[in-house]
Amino acid sequence: MLGAIEAGGTKFVCAVGDETGKIIERIQIPTTVPQETMTKVIEFFKGYTLEAIGVGSFGPIDVNRESLSYGSITSTPKLGWRDYPIVKTLEKEFGLPIGFNTDVNAAALGEVTLGAAKGLDSCIYITIGTGIGAGAIIQGKLLQGLTHPEMGHILVRRHPKDEYQGKCPYHGDCLEGLAAGPAIEERWGAKGIDLIDRQEVWELQGYYIAQALMQYVLILSPKKIILGGGVMNQKQLFPTIYKYLKVFVADYVHLPELSDYIVSPGLGDYAGITGSLMLAKQALQENH
Amino acid sequence: MLGAIEAGGTKFVCAVGDETGKIIERIQIPTTVPQETMTKVIEFFKGYTLEAIGVGSFGPIDVNRESLSYGSITSTPKLGWRDYPIVKTLEKEFGLPIGFNTDVNAAALGEVTLGAAKGLDSCIYITIGTGIGAGAIIQGKLLQGLTHPEMGHILVRRHPKDEYQGKCPYHGDCLEGLAAGPAIEERWGAKGIDLIDRQEVWELQGYYIAQALMQYVLILSPKKIILGGGVMNQKQLFPTIYKYLKVFVADYVHLPELSDYIVSPGLGDYAGITGSLMLAKQALQENH
Repeated sequence: MLGAIEAGGTKFVCAVGDETGKIIERIQIPTTVPQETMTKVIEFFKGYTLEAIGVGSFGPIDVNRESLSYGSITSTPKLGWRDYPIVKTLEKEFGLPIGFNTDVNAAALGEVTLGAAKGLDSCIYITIGTGIGAGAIIQGKLLQGLTHPEMGHILVRRHPKDEYQGKCPYHGDCLEGLAAGPAIEERWGAKGIDLIDRQEVWELQGYYIAQALMQYVLILSPKKIILGGGVMNQKQLFPTIYKYLKVFVADYVHLPELSDYIVSPGLGDYAGITGSLMLAKQALQENH
Repeated sequence: MLGAIEAGGTKFVCAVGDETGKIIERIQIPTTVPQETMTKVIEFFKGYTLEAIGVGSFGPIDVNRESLSYGSITSTPKLGWRDYPIVKTLEKEFGLPIGFNTDVNAAALGEVTLGAAKGLDSCIYITIGTGIGAGAIIQGKLLQGLTHPEMGHILVRRHPKDEYQGKCPYHGDCLEGLAAGPAIEERWGAKGIDLIDRQEVWELQGYYIAQALMQYVLILSPKKIILGGGVMNQKQLFPTIYKYLKVFVADYVHLPELSDYIVSPGLGDYAGITGSLMLAKQALQENH
């Protein structure tokens, strides 16, 4: 049996399941301080005989295996979690192989294994919610280089009618600063869910998200694009994204039919936890 | 012995060499029409006993092995080369394994094997000249997904003082449309090489190139960035690129010392042909 943790800024989802991605038990634990949250996480897993645990974590995290701080959450503003060695804590407690990656890379892995990109060796998974992040599978592997991708903070061209200054504490009006949930709320004075009928809101969102997809397509050439997160529950966004992406690409690269190429997660809210289970599977295989 | 072709829009560089990247003989053939150019290419290689040939080609090209047109140059405006089956032509003539990829992916492979990124498993190679293109090695492999990357056409934010409309026939003011050699010439009325003392020219170039690097860093996280091509012979560009990249990244991701991270090709003008030799080596290995 395998353990999985989807470590989020608001809650930790913990699950036990098997190598096929089947989830047997699943609980949610609020993200407070490490001592409290992790005590409950450990308690949950103690009830099972596990072979490995996979962690898909909020970030930024250190995924460089040659680094001294490998397996830690690094520069998060979240109280108590900065430099928290989550992998070492779990290794010490359970003595098991621990898989570790970003929450969005885990979700991409879940989707490529059992979701909307099943059968492909390449996809990106983008979450648009409180923040914007993306993970990628390229040629069958989780994308990693100097560090993990930080695709949510790419630069976009401002819409000529958009005068909102942006909400990213680092970049102001980067993609996340202009198009994540908090930017919608600050710009329009209401949450996205209360703005469903305001067409101009979704025109602007579609404009920014399509620009991001243009960059991802030209740089990574993914075989499938999966759009998740709270903001993407507004399904009326999809046609607007298709419309603007067509304008930006201008037939320069040949893309599949967009309604088949750019889709919602096949696993719904289970992409991250399923992918974390797959991280456990990978950790087990690497250990053999 | 291995053969290599760096197939460019102006000239074909052909070489024979060995698996270590040592080049024994090298010639240049002007790119005219396929019948003429390829006859000379074939004639050159007929003088040697080869085990495989690698081709790094101008594009766009079809690199999808499951495609019927695999191994062809596809939608180029270059007379006679559209849909030209370069791999099939060489296979038919020599009966050898043929490696095939873009010229910039080949250059990235050359640089990671023997050049500025030697010893790493990740780099991007960007050429800024008549056009802008980039190739990438990610986790030891040439980046490929739906198709090869087309990183030269990403969107950038216009500099507030730049009123030039852009030269890309597809996108107008994409990166290539604003920052490739022909854009410099049209915007300023002279070639880059005659504008060396005009600081505003290189400020603008640095501004656009740094934006592109910001996107590549956040999306691909390469371990080394190599900037080649005619425009990058203006070495005064490097400090300006470093300056703007620091502004854009705003300490959000931790990068190595920029003068060590963003560099000129270690192989100089031999990156592409050396990489093509490595494509031949890969083709030979795959065939064994």
